[in-house]
Amino acid sequence: MHEQQVKKMNAYPKITLVGAGPGDTDLISLKGLKALSTADVVLYDALVNEELLEYVPKEALRVFVGKRANQHAYSQQQINEMMVAYARSNGHVVRLKGGDPFVFGRGGEELDHAALCGIPTAVVPGISSAVALAGLQGIPLTYRGISESFWVITGATTAGVISQDIHAAAKTGATVVILMGLNKLTEIVTVFRNEGKGNLPIAVIQNGSMPDEKIVLGTIDTIVAHVKDQGIGAPAVIVIGEVVAKHKQFGLEQANAIAV
Amino acid sequence: MHEQQVKKMNAYPKITLVGAGPGDTDLISLKGLKALSTADVVLYDALVNEELLEYVPKEALRVFVGKRANQHAYSQQQINEMMVAYARSNGHVVRLKGGDPFVFGRGGEELDHAALCGIPTAVVPGISSAVALAGLQGIPLTYRGISESFWVITGATTAGVISQDIHAAAKTGATVVILMGLNKLTEIVTVFRNEGKGNLPIAVIQNGSMPDEKIVLGTIDTIVAHVKDQGIGAPAVIVIGEVVAKHKQFGLEQANAIAV
Repeated sequence: MHEQQVKKMNAYPKITLVGAGPGDTDLISLKGLKALSTADVVLYDALVNEELLEYVPKEALRVFVGKRANQHAYSQQQINEMMVAYARSNGHVVRLKGGDPFVFGRGGEELDHAALCGIPTAVVPGISSAVALAGLQGIPLTYRGISESFWVITGATTAGVISQDIHAAAKTGATVVILMGLNKLTEIVTVFRNEGKGNLPIAVIQNGSMPDEKIVLGTIDTIVAHVKDQGIGAPAVIVIGEVVAKHKQFGLEQANAIAV
Repeated sequence: MHEQQVKKMNAYPKITLVGAGPGDTDLISLKGLKALSTADVVLYDALVNEELLEYVPKEALRVFVGKRANQHAYSQQQINEMMVAYARSNGHVVRLKGGDPFVFGRGGEELDHAALCGIPTAVVPGISSAVALAGLQGIPLTYRGISESFWVITGATTAGVISQDIHAAAKTGATVVILMGLNKLTEIVTVFRNEGKGNLPIAVIQNGSMPDEKIVLGTIDTIVAHVKDQGIGAPAVIVIGEVVAKHKQFGLEQANAIAV
């Protein structure tokens, strides 16, 4: 007991932002695991697979800071302050975030706050859902002769309306990946339909990389009905572009909501 | 010896595309390591860190299929055929690719060829340089109020000219990430300058995540000179957008080519 108190008193404050990956615990990096294994405190989000906490030392604190049922447990400002307070009192804080810390993860704000408070930081990137989930389904985000770029956009903007970037993206040949956009799907497909792209392939992937993963395939004109029929819900990633037709089941409309 | 021959004869052909991550061996996923540990053959690219081959069973074949000094060791068609031939003769082929298999990795073509030949496939996503390297430098690709999207584009198109997508991206507020674009940097900045964005922040990251990592920071107007001064070479990732100004050293021009 005394030894542990001494250890805490000597603890050097540090914050490591770690990307947990898209859900499958085996998709975290070795470096992420090493960070977890040296944590004194872990602050983790709702989209993080809690099985990852098994890699955290027994005596470390585990603090859930995600939101449940659309209620934020803590505001971003509160999380920033907790991060710094725990680093000062306990030492190494691992801020464990779903996917990659900087793909709509507000990791930038956390780095800024830590810097403001003079706490050293490190970053361990994660496998982003935006990149990985299409590939796990056999949909290549880029493909020679079909798509030479992909554009990742949030469906959840501060203003509540869909991003101007989605309007711009619909005019291009880029593969478009939208995170947190499922509840705006009708608006999103309208933007693409207005560009004359009603036949463009689109996929919606729910719980990607997890045992209960589902995918719904269709076109801009058909996807809203398919998603409704299949009862797809969040969290989901939307992938739009000709590359979606590379999925093995594409065009087999009866095969929607394919169990993986 | 006899036991091993029997094992080979029973080997079930399978191809797993594995993303090795951006360079640091600790940035491969646990799932990627598990795939490597069950490989009978590994076909690996030039951008893969060869230290990862230590996770491959001793008796497995290791085949380098990358390019050296701008010469392809093998054409994509040859790689496709080798993959399938080794799967049939030896069993589990791991196709180990830098970054993520589908971010300009031609993984889609490899899946197509395997499917054509009736070989089962699996995919293990990787941490893409396009997403991770900015974050490792403390540059968030997205940031509330600054950027709500990022657009990843290849600088190396089949046609040899820069992608139309770069022209389109320069007109938007997206953070733009360009892979394999260093030798087109002058053309790229011209596109942004023509949009009146001479002061837009830009970073060039060489050997990201490795001990010899370097970053050069500047603006559209200054970056070409800085890159030349600092002798930056491939492989390099280009990041363009207001978020680049979040880098701790941004604006300190004398601090260019910062050792990490």
